[in-house]
Amino acid sequence: MKNKSLKIIPIGGLGEVGRNMMIYEYDDDIIIVDCGLMFPNNDMLGVDYIIPDFQYLRNNREKIRGIIFTHGHEDHIGAVNYFLEEFNVPIYATPLTMGLIKVKLGKASLNKDVSLHTVQAGNQIRVGKFKIDFFHVCHSIPDSVGLGIETPEGLIVQSGDYKFDHTPVDNWPTDYAKLVEFSKRGVLALIADSTNSTRPGWTPSEQVVSEALDKVFAQAKERIIVASFASLVSRMQQVVNAAKKYNRKIAFVGTSMVENAKIAQKLGFLTIDEDQKISIEEALHLPDEKVAIMCTGAQGEPTSILGRLSRGTQRQFDIKEGDTVVLSSKVIPGNEEAVYSTINDLFRRGANVIYEQIAPVHVSGHGSQEDIKLLLHLTRPKYFIPAYGELRQMKQSAILAMQTGIPERHIAVVEDGQSITFKNNKMRMGDIKPISMVFVDGSGVGDIGPDEMRDRELLSKDGIILVHVILNKHDGSLVINPEVVSRGFTSTKEADGLFNRARNTIINTVKRNPTNLEKDITKTLSGFIYRETRRRPTIMVTVSNI
Amino acid sequence: MKNKSLKIIPIGGLGEVGRNMMIYEYDDDIIIVDCGLMFPNNDMLGVDYIIPDFQYLRNNREKIRGIIFTHGHEDHIGAVNYFLEEFNVPIYATPLTMGLIKVKLGKASLNKDVSLHTVQAGNQIRVGKFKIDFFHVCHSIPDSVGLGIETPEGLIVQSGDYKFDHTPVDNWPTDYAKLVEFSKRGVLALIADSTNSTRPGWTPSEQVVSEALDKVFAQAKERIIVASFASLVSRMQQVVNAAKKYNRKIAFVGTSMVENAKIAQKLGFLTIDEDQKISIEEALHLPDEKVAIMCTGAQGEPTSILGRLSRGTQRQFDIKEGDTVVLSSKVIPGNEEAVYSTINDLFRRGANVIYEQIAPVHVSGHGSQEDIKLLLHLTRPKYFIPAYGELRQMKQSAILAMQTGIPERHIAVVEDGQSITFKNNKMRMGDIKPISMVFVDGSGVGDIGPDEMRDRELLSKDGIILVHVILNKHDGSLVINPEVVSRGFTSTKEADGLFNRARNTIINTVKRNPTNLEKDITKTLSGFIYRETRRRPTIMVTVSNI
Repeated sequence: MKNKSLKIIPIGGLGEVGRNMMIYEYDDDIIIVDCGLMFPNNDMLGVDYIIPDFQYLRNNREKIRGIIFTHGHEDHIGAVNYFLEEFNVPIYATPLTMGLIKVKLGKASLNKDVSLHTVQAGNQIRVGKFKIDFFHVCHSIPDSVGLGIETPEGLIVQSGDYKFDHTPVDNWPTDYAKLVEFSKRGVLALIADSTNSTRPGWTPSEQVVSEALDKVFAQAKERIIVASFASLVSRMQQVVNAAKKYNRKIAFVGTSMVENAKIAQKLGFLTIDEDQKISIEEALHLPDEKVAIMCTGAQGEPTSILGRLSRGTQRQFDIKEGDTVVLSSKVIPGNEEAVYSTINDLFRRGANVIYEQIAPVHVSGHGSQEDIKLLLHLTRPKYFIPAYGELRQMKQSAILAMQTGIPERHIAVVEDGQSITFKNNKMRMGDIKPISMVFVDGSGVGDIGPDEMRDRELLSKDGIILVHVILNKHDGSLVINPEVVSRGFTSTKEADGLFNRARNTIINTVKRNPTNLEKDITKTLSGFIYRETRRRPTIMVTVSNI
Repeated sequence: MKNKSLKIIPIGGLGEVGRNMMIYEYDDDIIIVDCGLMFPNNDMLGVDYIIPDFQYLRNNREKIRGIIFTHGHEDHIGAVNYFLEEFNVPIYATPLTMGLIKVKLGKASLNKDVSLHTVQAGNQIRVGKFKIDFFHVCHSIPDSVGLGIETPEGLIVQSGDYKFDHTPVDNWPTDYAKLVEFSKRGVLALIADSTNSTRPGWTPSEQVVSEALDKVFAQAKERIIVASFASLVSRMQQVVNAAKKYNRKIAFVGTSMVENAKIAQKLGFLTIDEDQKISIEEALHLPDEKVAIMCTGAQGEPTSILGRLSRGTQRQFDIKEGDTVVLSSKVIPGNEEAVYSTINDLFRRGANVIYEQIAPVHVSGHGSQEDIKLLLHLTRPKYFIPAYGELRQMKQSAILAMQTGIPERHIAVVEDGQSITFKNNKMRMGDIKPISMVFVDGSGVGDIGPDEMRDRELLSKDGIILVHVILNKHDGSLVINPEVVSRGFTSTKEADGLFNRARNTIINTVKRNPTNLEKDITKTLSGFIYRETRRRPTIMVTVSNI
């Protein structure tokens, strides 16, 4: 008999925020949990998003038995179409999550049939050698689940994104009973969300947001515009409820917002009277005090509805003096500047802006320190693997686990690619799989790497100077004066005199007839420009011999 | 008699964070308060910093009677050398602030004598028609003051950066008595710090930080490395105190940190036993448990000491397993990503990292909502002008002022350039002075504007493609095949086939012999590239006719 063991391989989401993907492998069977995308850091210039590295799966293609999704947020389902372009395996998800996945598949227009299995929270499925319990958790999108994965080596619980909310918008609390049942069966390892591990206390209930929104709606005299994520379906319900109470119609604006509202409504996750929902055109013809608008752009994205409203470039309508604008979502780290500048611009245009710092119009969908400790006590795992977060957040999660009594040697703080094996009830570190950043830029996947990123960074800092030299191929003399032009380096006015002198530097270099003319011009010119301006623009030299 | 009035003109710091500068003008006299710099936003590509726009001062050069500084932080003194290159007027500041200004002047090697007047907190000076009281305030740098400016139209109080701290590091609380005295004299207007106007409650005392540092020092078994701002002189004192208590020597690392410690020590604002202070070389030869190191880089700046330590590129020493690293300063908005990535990298190298989210190792130097309300009640101004902050923060400051009983019409939320006039005890909006962003990049001041910024942004997104075409000047035919090269666009491997096809596009365009060949090639090529890659790189075409 082969020396079999359970191997867990985090592909994305451990040590980074987003592109969540986890592999469970036993013998000839692999199942995958989630396949999300990640939004680029500010230094990943020009990148649209980052998807998981499928290399390990390519090498083990024939073992994959299925892919399971925990909920419908982009960081968990966003790369599903890239995945299905390469792999054709059954998909398992709850109804809302599946609805959102279908939208993606529809857009990707895949040339194959995909086998889709809708599973209800509370159900159990069998995929390969794994028996999987879907259990309901509260999160900022309805129909979210965690997974109890029964493997030949024992039960692994993967939390998904969760919090404990005793008064959630849909009145459907996290499935405490199932967690306790797991604990009775004996949990070998818990893999859990660490996003808010540095936040003391409990994450507040969505109820707090309902109350804050109620206050906003009670006080606003004219239009109310609420910006949020298109995927925050429960927030949509809260805004709909407040609008209904205060006798306002509601218009959803923005493709993804409209689309998600439609799916959520169709599947019964968003309840709204047909006569309350109006189009933006209708909204603009109603009295201001009868209107609520819900749109995207709470991250300050320049091309979003709110971003364009803040600069007065939205095609259909403008911010008016007296509008109340609510930013009802967290600020994703790295977006602070964009969000605050959008808020300032909205104030400049006369709106009254309500945002998380001045009123509780948003609460997190992730559990804080006390939630994390409760999950640990409910499941009582032997081993603990912090997941979903930066390294600092997983480290803090580990500290919380130790506080609940899990010994340090039973906790694995690992990052993507570090496999973990379980055999005979023991956890060990496995081998490390290389994991790369797979950048998506336009229609290109993976053709942009660290080199191009570095080039873009240099270009963005001091611009570029281009030199073109045409030489007589017989005697190496200059045919015409060198061409020197620039972009993003300095204003044309300033450049004139400087470039005349630069041209002389180049002519002198050509006269010296060096072995590597491109390199020599680059070096000399670079030195000249730095001495004159203390800047280091990118310099590109092309030499034509004719 | 001329129709005289007091004119207050905010040049920087109202509606933006940093480059603080305020002008007070009455008749033929102008005084200036502060002259700071501002750090660039993430979208100001390649900019080192932004300084105030001196245009109004150039137009009124002969009126300027002096410049007064409230404290020694960069956002209040950082542009003083640029100012003195153009203007020669007396400088007034308290001893530590003056010490830090002198360092800047020394570096700038100005070719003129500057008249420096050191003023003690509590003193009164007369400059032109203005009588100015310097009153002590608590802030995160010692020797900070606010100003009571007696003008012919009444008393204006400008807070400077301040908080109310009953247990400050130097035991020198904010001068409550002076504030009450102002209130007795009657305050026409209060101009006050709004930085923390969205934070409920009081800003905690520095005492909290001392206690948190004490805990860190009590628990750490090996080296302790504390990163902070070079200008946080009181934080230096706290670290020195903790190190002394736990019998550790201290080494300051980083030019600005060493320089500021030296000045602060010389002027009596930093107390440290001579045998406690050691060089980094000495520190590296002591047992780890005897060493504390204080350095710069708490903002995640890649070239700072901590930034280099986090990547293992610091010349003198490395992070070791067991090191405790403390980030003892706030995260400047926009730097979150860089700071967290530095923290994660430090964890990866084996350090235990302590930062604001997990322990109170930093408190703000700016007053929160209750501090702001206390300042309003102590001074009881007729008019209120929120200052130092983004528009959203000044708006929130105005709400606090209304809560303390100041009517809305007595509050002026204005941004840079909007002058405010006072006459016969009445405040009115004056004219608006145009204010530009003056970017400093390398040795260039103001030669970079929105056009270059836009070019840099485009370059950073999708890179650049360069085309060079050499034509026969007699018949317009191609002399050699067009040259096509790129930077930051795609990997060379991917580009090969694409550029071959691009070359054909260019050859066909040349054959059509259009009137504007550069423009036509740019347009055709841009379309071709977008269709093929969904990217929009910058395209530059040069045509040589030989």
